[in-house]
Amino acid sequence: MSSLVYEFPLNEKCRNYLRLSELLKQIDQCRGLNAPGQATALFKALLDALELLERCDLRTDLAKDLEQQNSRLEAWARVPGVDAAALEQFSQKLESISQQLPRSARLGQALREDRLLSAVRSRFAIPGGLCAFDVPQLHHWLHQPAERQQQDLNAWVEQLGLLQQGLSLLLTLWRESSQFTTQRANAGFFQDSAEHTEMIRLRLPGEQPVYPVVSGNKYRFTIRFMPVGNTDIGNIDFELANIK
Amino acid sequence: MSSLVYEFPLNEKCRNYLRLSELLKQIDQCRGLNAPGQATALFKALLDALELLERCDLRTDLAKDLEQQNSRLEAWARVPGVDAAALEQFSQKLESISQQLPRSARLGQALREDRLLSAVRSRFAIPGGLCAFDVPQLHHWLHQPAERQQQDLNAWVEQLGLLQQGLSLLLTLWRESSQFTTQRANAGFFQDSAEHTEMIRLRLPGEQPVYPVVSGNKYRFTIRFMPVGNTDIGNIDFELANIK
Repeated sequence: MSSLVYEFPLNEKCRNYLRLSELLKQIDQCRGLNAPGQATALFKALLDALELLERCDLRTDLAKDLEQQNSRLEAWARVPGVDAAALEQFSQKLESISQQLPRSARLGQALREDRLLSAVRSRFAIPGGLCAFDVPQLHHWLHQPAERQQQDLNAWVEQLGLLQQGLSLLLTLWRESSQFTTQRANAGFFQDSAEHTEMIRLRLPGEQPVYPVVSGNKYRFTIRFMPVGNTDIGNIDFELANIK
Repeated sequence: MSSLVYEFPLNEKCRNYLRLSELLKQIDQCRGLNAPGQATALFKALLDALELLERCDLRTDLAKDLEQQNSRLEAWARVPGVDAAALEQFSQKLESISQQLPRSARLGQALREDRLLSAVRSRFAIPGGLCAFDVPQLHHWLHQPAERQQQDLNAWVEQLGLLQQGLSLLLTLWRESSQFTTQRANAGFFQDSAEHTEMIRLRLPGEQPVYPVVSGNKYRFTIRFMPVGNTDIGNIDFELANIK
């Protein structure tokens, strides 16, 4: 079995980045409505994204983080042998998004104003509340031709494109710039300094019957490995990368 | 485009029947975990079913309704030309389920006691709360081999089989015993007596840009057709069946 990577954000901003990035991925994967259950997953992701965007405005933070990555790229450009043209193109993309973001409209407006989404939202938390009798307009919509559904979907997610591009760029740069090092958790426990760390990444063999639980703040973080089932936890070797 | 059927329960018992039946269908359709989003839909359906089963114990009601259907079948058996053997077999199935239901364990116990489901449940309502860092044990589980996942799934839903069989039989009998008649809603409005009616079924052409909203109690029900978009509502011809 391949290895499994866990990412743990160490501050609220990164938690929102990762959550939104997961939701946008889910929207993208389900928007074709090609398999049973994808409508439910799609609406949950849309409504969750809407709720997150209502609570926090990520535009400024994301633009700032992208700018920071861009200045790091400039340092790379001075390294001999680096493909300067490719780097330049990448840097322009970063700059363009980080400039557009703060000027864009408040994200999620189209989602907030949609009548169908509002109806679904009002019943989503009720157990089984998406039945045809609960939200008849959803039942009607789910039986419309695919082109009609895709038109609506495009209108809902159109505004999220810039956010998706920005998040995807930032997370890719973060992930690729971090190096895994091997660590050992004695009796399943590990702690380290978290200074300037945005998030940590852990890599483990997928078949190992443990999962990590992380708590942390801006100074320190601790990892505790928990057993799946009733096995004992001994010393655990794992790989760790700090993203700063 | 084909026609679209809407079902509206007129009492709390039927609302629970239809909701649970939809959730069990979703669990069934998604439990293969073959497409993106199906894990989310599956967990939502499992948790919603668990919550409904905690709130109301359907075993007695369902057993009573199945018995009532069984006594109606006996009347059918006296009609000349009816396939008596097939009817007898069906009747035995009804009787068997209606006898087992009240004696079965309280439904959903296996769902309630599962550690993974409890962890998922505690984060499900948080927007984006199923991220790997929120529920690392879910991230671990989602990357286990399919056989292992199916073992867990079988354990979770095993207990719901009797409920699914009973609901499916009852709803099939209800649906097939009702006859549609053509009706007209003047200016989109229709009302009728609801005496002894468990639920009503409406049939409309799927492409018609309206959806029905029903309110009712045990004496009367009203149907109001609502426009999809900004069209005017004129007289609406539709088909209606009352299930008693």
